[in-house]
Amino acid sequence: MINIIHRVGIKAPVAKVYAALATVEGVAGWWTKETTGTSKVGGNIDFRFLSQEGKEIGSMRAEVTELDPNKNVQWRVIAGPPEWIGTDLVFNLTQEGEYTIVLFGHKNWREAVEFTAHCSMKWATFMLSLKEFVETGKGKPAPNDIKIDNWN
Amino acid sequence: MINIIHRVGIKAPVAKVYAALATVEGVAGWWTKETTGTSKVGGNIDFRFLSQEGKEIGSMRAEVTELDPNKNVQWRVIAGPPEWIGTDLVFNLTQEGEYTIVLFGHKNWREAVEFTAHCSMKWATFMLSLKEFVETGKGKPAPNDIKIDNWN
Repeated sequence: MINIIHRVGIKAPVAKVYAALATVEGVAGWWTKETTGTSKVGGNIDFRFLSQEGKEIGSMRAEVTELDPNKNVQWRVIAGPPEWIGTDLVFNLTQEGEYTIVLFGHKNWREAVEFTAHCSMKWATFMLSLKEFVETGKGKPAPNDIKIDNWN
Repeated sequence: MINIIHRVGIKAPVAKVYAALATVEGVAGWWTKETTGTSKVGGNIDFRFLSQEGKEIGSMRAEVTELDPNKNVQWRVIAGPPEWIGTDLVFNLTQEGEYTIVLFGHKNWREAVEFTAHCSMKWATFMLSLKEFVETGKGKPAPNDIKIDNWN
């Protein structure tokens, strides 16, 4: 299986980072403003991505598979791009001094395709957005996300 | 083997992107200012990373293994962090409309460790730096690189 993995350090208490990952309002602050649903184990969360003009350019649905306070958040993708279905989104948290370290994984891709490379870059920009959101209160969730190529 | 892969699109002719990858002066504009050596197949390039205060915090040496004008640049790491030795750095270029698409790979890691996740994030920020450098003339090479965690 193919995994995208990124490590980011956020200057904030682990509880604050956890809240940005384990609540719908938190995720809306760094990934996509259009985040709705129920963040509890077994619940579903919907993520919609709009263009600057308000047109939908993509969407995903994930089931929350793990919520371990201040330690771990995990989702299983159940709808969205075919390559994403059945993959896992994992956020593992540890405190190291003044940093909360996020080990992010988008795991269990069936193969490494060009879209995987696009998503790896895109996830890195969203990890920077998560860092900004927690540290400053203002992230870059879609539709204000950093554009990286001709796909988005 | 474990591969880091990123896709980035740069609004510039492919020859301009190739020059930023295939020349020492080009690489110094987006990866690390302290880039020296000989960018020809079989030649070695040295990359030194300094802190803002001018202290060396890391270095690598790579052998240039492929230079295919406007298509491909490839280096094999021969000195540096133990995890990097024997890995390959690959930049594959194609033109798509007004974009040059860079498919970047840091390939053939022996295992996926926490340092791999750090490097994946860090490479994404250097791909953004490459994009900025080619599009605007000003990148963010070390020591002005984006800091992502407590390791750098």
